[in-house]
Parts: sequence; C-alpha cells; structure tokens
Amino acid sequence: MTDPPGRLHAAIAELALFNDDPAAGGITREVYTPTYAGALERVQTWMRDAGLELRVDAIGNLFGRWAGTEPGAPVVLTGSHVDTTLNAGAYDGVLGVLGAIEAVHLLRDRGFTPRRSIELVAWAGEEPRFGTGCVGSRAAAGELSRADLDRLVDRNGISMAAALAAAGLNPDRLAAARIDAPTVHALVELHIEQGIVLETHGEPIGVVTAIAAPHDFRLTFTGAATHAGATPMGLRRDALVGAAEAIVAIERIARASSSGTTVGTVGVVHARPGAINVVPGTVELDVDVRDSDAAAREAVVAAIVDAARKIADARDMEVAVHEIVEDVPVACDPAVVAAASEACAELGLTPRLMTSGAYHDAMIMGRRLPVGMIFVPSRGGVSHHPDEYTAPEELDRGVAVLAGTLARLAG
Amino acid sequence: MTDPPGRLHAAIAELALFNDDPAAGGITREVYTPTYAGALERVQTWMRDAGLELRVDAIGNLFGRWAGTEPGAPVVLTGSHVDTTLNAGAYDGVLGVLGAIEAVHLLRDRGFTPRRSIELVAWAGEEPRFGTGCVGSRAAAGELSRADLDRLVDRNGISMAAALAAAGLNPDRLAAARIDAPTVHALVELHIEQGIVLETHGEPIGVVTAIAAPHDFRLTFTGAATHAGATPMGLRRDALVGAAEAIVAIERIARASSSGTTVGTVGVVHARPGAINVVPGTVELDVDVRDSDAAAREAVVAAIVDAARKIADARDMEVAVHEIVEDVPVACDPAVVAAASEACAELGLTPRLMTSGAYHDAMIMGRRLPVGMIFVPSRGGVSHHPDEYTAPEELDRGVAVLAGTLARLAG
Repeated sequence: MTDPPGRLHAAIAELALFNDDPAAGGITREVYTPTYAGALERVQTWMRDAGLELRVDAIGNLFGRWAGTEPGAPVVLTGSHVDTTLNAGAYDGVLGVLGAIEAVHLLRDRGFTPRRSIELVAWAGEEPRFGTGCVGSRAAAGELSRADLDRLVDRNGISMAAALAAAGLNPDRLAAARIDAPTVHALVELHIEQGIVLETHGEPIGVVTAIAAPHDFRLTFTGAATHAGATPMGLRRDALVGAAEAIVAIERIARASSSGTTVGTVGVVHARPGAINVVPGTVELDVDVRDSDAAAREAVVAAIVDAARKIADARDMEVAVHEIVEDVPVACDPAVVAAASEACAELGLTPRLMTSGAYHDAMIMGRRLPVGMIFVPSRGGVSHHPDEYTAPEELDRGVAVLAGTLARLAG
Repeated sequence: MTDPPGRLHAAIAELALFNDDPAAGGITREVYTPTYAGALERVQTWMRDAGLELRVDAIGNLFGRWAGTEPGAPVVLTGSHVDTTLNAGAYDGVLGVLGAIEAVHLLRDRGFTPRRSIELVAWAGEEPRFGTGCVGSRAAAGELSRADLDRLVDRNGISMAAALAAAGLNPDRLAAARIDAPTVHALVELHIEQGIVLETHGEPIGVVTAIAAPHDFRLTFTGAATHAGATPMGLRRDALVGAAEAIVAIERIARASSSGTTVGTVGVVHARPGAINVVPGTVELDVDVRDSDAAAREAVVAAIVDAARKIADARDMEVAVHEIVEDVPVACDPAVVAAASEACAELGLTPRLMTSGAYHDAMIMGRRLPVGMIFVPSRGGVSHHPDEYTAPEELDRGVAVLAGTLARLAG
C-alpha cells in the first residue's frame, strides 16, 4: 500500500538501530540522550524528504509542516514519539511519527493539497525517563513548569533541566513550547493498540472514542515480621496474606465496575523483609485503576480502599494509602472520530470503536484540543518489550487510514 | 542469679562490638570473617577463664572441655553459635555459647564435679552465609562433603573452601571434624525462642520436645504480561492474582493441618516485570512449611501444590514447583527433656513443653545424638533484627536451667 513498497518498514527497522543497549535484545532510546538525538536527526531527514518545513521547540518537540493553502487556518496536528522505555519494541510511538511521514507521501502521491496546514510532531519524552511521562506534550499543553524541570530527575539523578541543557536546549525557554489551542483544528495520533482487543476480536483497525486515564496509588499493609518457623498460625499478623486478599478483591471490584470498562491492576508488590523464613511484616502494593469513565473509576478506587481497610481491620493490621497520580480521562472529538471512521469505510474497513487503556500524548493534548486516535493490532498485546510486533500490512492499513483522516480534517 | 552479677550480660554486650556494620544499627558477624575470628578469640578467653581446655576442629567449631571424673565416658555437649545474619540481634546463638560458659561458673561455684566431661561448643556457620545453614554441625554430623565446600558460595561468590583457607583452616581435613555418636551422651542447646509463644502465654521458660524442620519450595505462576491499561479484565491472565489466591490458600491449608502445629509461610514474592502499568506475567512465591510432624507437614505441602495447580488451571496459567530444601524433623530425647524439666522444677519453674519452629544446630545433631533445647522468651518474637531482645533476668533463668540440666546429664 505504501509507495515505494516497504519504505515505512525500512525506516522503522533503521530507527531501531539507534539503540543504547542492543545486547539486551530490545531497543533502549531514552529522550535527550545522544542516541535519541541521532534518531531525531534521522527523522528530520525523512521529514525533509517528504517536503516538510522543520522546527524544534524549547522542550525538544520536533515539528514538520506541510503548509496548506490557507496558511492562517488552524492546523491539523499528527504524530507520536520516538523515545522508548528500557529494552522496548520498535513500534510504540515510532509508528505514529514514521507512519505520519508515510501518510504525507501517500497524500502527495494522490495529488492531495491541504487547505489547512498539516503539522507532523515527534513529542519529546512520552516515556517516563524522569518519572512523569509525556513531558513534551505536557510542555505544549502548558502543564509543565520551569520548577518541574529541576524537580524531575531520572534514575541516575539527572534533572530534566540538566538533560535539556546537555541536549542543546534551553530550559528557561520552556514557555515558548506552549501551543495555543485556537491555532490547532484537530490532533490525530496513529498508534499500536498495546492490548489484545483487536487481535481477540479479529478486527484490523480501531478508532478511539475515549482515552482512559489512570488513578495510581500505593497500599501499604503493616503487620508483624516474625519467625516463619517459630510463630504459630494463630499468632501471626502476616502482611502478605492480607495484601493477597486485597489483590483478589481488586480484581473482583474492577470486574464489577458499573462502566464495564474499568481495569484494576497490581503490577508491583514488595514484601519485606523478604526472607523465606520470616513472616512478611510490611507489604506494598502499587495499584493502577483506569477507565475513560472517571466516575466509575473513582467508585472502584473507593471500593478498593474500603476493602483494604476491612481486610487490615480483620487481621489486626494497618493499611496506609499513598496517592501516586490521578489523571483525567479524555473523550475524543466526535469530528475526529467521524473523519477516521469515514477513512476506514473508504478502504472497506469497519473500525472497532474502542477506548484506549494506555495513555498517550493525545490524552495530554485532549484536555485542550479536539483529539482522536487510530489503533492497529499488537500481537499478543505485547508492548514495551522486544517482542512487540505489528505485521507490515497492518502498519500499512493504519497509515492509509491516517492519510484518509488527515485528508478529511485538512481538506 | 549469675555471680558476679552481670558477667553474662557484659559478655553479650562486649561480643556485640565485633560487628562489620555497626552503622546499620544491628550486628553483622558472618562466619570465617576477621570480625568473626576476633569474636571467637574473645570467647576463647572467656572459656579459659572458666577453666576449660580448648580445641578448634577442621571446620572451625570451637570446643571447651570441662573434664569429668570418668574421662572415657560419653560427654555432655552444650552450645550454639556466635555468627550472625546481616544486621542481626545480640542473643540468637550467642546466649547458647556465653550462657553455657556462665553455667560452668555457676556449677563450679556450687562445688559441682562432673562425672561425664562437659564440652561447650560454638558451632561454625549456623547462619546461612553460604546458602546452607548449620555448616559446622553438619560437618560434625558427617553431612558435609569436601565437594560441598567448593560448591557452596556466599553472595560474593567466595566458596566455603576459600573462606576456610582464609581463616587458617584446612578444608581437606573436613572429615576430622566428624563426631562419633557413641562419644556423646547428650547435647543440650540454650536459645532464645525467636517466637512469641512464651510471651503470649506469659511463661518464663520452654523445654523443647521436638524441632520442626522446613520443607521449602518455590511456586512459579506464569500468565501473560500485558498492558495494565489496554487489557480488559476479561482478557487477562494475571499471574499475581493467581499467586494471591495461592497465598490465601496456603494460610487456610496450614491452619487446617491435622497436627495443629504446621506453619505455612510465603516470605518471598517476586512479580515480574514489576511495573505499575503492566499485568504481572510471572510470579514466584517461596513457600516454607514446617512441622515436627513430618507426615502432617507433607500432607500440607501436597495440598498446597494441589491447590496451586487448581488455581492455575482455572486461570489458564501454568504453575511450576521447584524444590528448595526438605529437612527431617527431630524428636528431642526424653531423658534430656526430663533433665531440663527437673532443672526447671528445682527452680520453682513450670516449663512450657513446646516445639521449636526455628531450626538449630541441635536439629542437625539430633538425627544422630540424643538432643534437647531450652528456650527463653524473645520480646515480640523478633529475631535476626537489631530489636531482638530478652531481658537480663530471663537470660539468667535460662542459664540456671541449663546448669541444672547439665548437672543432671553429667552428674
């Protein structure tokens, strides 16, 4: 479908070579590193080949502009990110940037001329090198302060401000990265699903109607760390058994959510002291609850906290709740959803209208701008992992739908 | 009770100064280190002060002999260990060595003359620096081979053989450390309980009738590591929820054990990949099941494995069982139990007849020799921790009971 065939696939493979840890088997390309800079430079050459005018803003977001016939009209933004987590896959984010370049080629080849300018973007730092993700889009949304740049540090203690300076960017110019909402008509992001909904239902393409946002918190159960051999069952205050009851309850409560779309996950558990012959005295559970329906999500969070307290009471233990992050879900813009759905129909595809459970730069911008997303299947739902995979024809289908969507939004 | 008052307590405090990590707040004195050697040298001076003849065997076990009037008669052994875990307390093991020296003083002051020789022992390496604990008593029991000394390594990769050589011991003389069963009349070990049974029941002293042994194994649940946001509840194979059900089942199964004394503990849990936004794909649980009743213990282990398999089946997951260690419980010798009980009665104390849930050098030797143990309370059951504590009068009471027990066994 792309022309010449394979250009997109070759570009994805070439970008994967910008990798700080090839021995691990996956791709490690964290934002603001020399390796990231090299990858971004390569993306710039591809954007130039597609006839785009380039600029990089103060936070490192890269823009490539295809000027429309009405230069003053609000633009259509499309893009994603080319940074990765540690030992990640080749498609997360990258598809949304390189796929957008391919969509521009496709539209040019068709002789399409945009009325509104189309701006491609590679957002800086979608992955949470500095603890918080989506720093590029947060800066564009005006949600990042100069103080945040000093406060946010990576696992080596390097502040965002220091990393920006090392990358040749000026942290004091942060405010210049802000995008004024009236200058943007719509934003659309092409992305791999990172889930197994499309695969499970055998569907080729998804159009996102809402982006779920997480409410993350830590539950810390405190019982008594006693000798596993010397403490009879009746004299224990085993924090891990209490935490285990909570893990089972979290699944039950999330399944029973009124929206039917809430998910609740315990992804991190730490039992201390963590010796085979000691009853755990303290257990931390990091809980992630997400939904596009904020009210349903908060009802689930409240029920989980209530269940945890009852479990702790019944076991003569304490439980503390520590907030980690609470983000606001975003509804996609009906006009963007319609444009993407029409683009699918034009290609003979029936899209699955679905919620994005993962969060994206589009969610950050969606608080201020009309946004939408297009999903292609992810094999096995695997993401942030070397095994992340989407077949070439599925990538091409996503690009074709993106091109059709851009044509409708900018035409 | 001791004379001069406080000598034992001063010695315990002084030995605590032999410490490789005082900044951590507790005591770190691993076997075969220079710090351990210094502590053992100080113990030797105290043994000499008590009129004992010293010898150190090939594995580093220290013996102090009070010759009896019948030098050829089987001896009475008593002792414990002066090595510690990392950041441990001052009493575990130490009481059984320094308390035995104090018991000798007590008996000498009373004008007691032993018929059988009394041999004090500080076993080398009760704590598992090299993964396996009780290496000194295992060598004495003939359960450690020369090949084991090369195979067993500490967390820094130092083999036991290398550690022995560095400590001036000859690993090739290992066989000389073996104690022939007919040369020993009985072994008695004074120890802190490391549990809260005495404290909970308000009892001052325990006489151990059996030493429970652990059957340790690892359960590894494998589901699918998928995106926490992008995977609906109905499409998950969450290894942690399955493992949590198993943790709850382990408590239930252990409580229902036919012996009434089985304990089952999950002390270690690892959920992978261990990110807040990823459903755990693999979870390892390290399970410890103990009882002095081997049949009851094995029935509990079988029921746990069965429950884990049913949980995994119901969740379309795999579970693997990996054996860690399976030790044999030991019944204490009725004559030693009787001698200790009489010693208590003589002091106006009613001992609690109890099982040792923790395992000790006495358990290793108990497979070959008549053994017994005397327990004093542990505040809060805390052990292997800087907060480990037994009150001075409780220590003295334990020493008095040990002295009375030795008098009966050696008299």
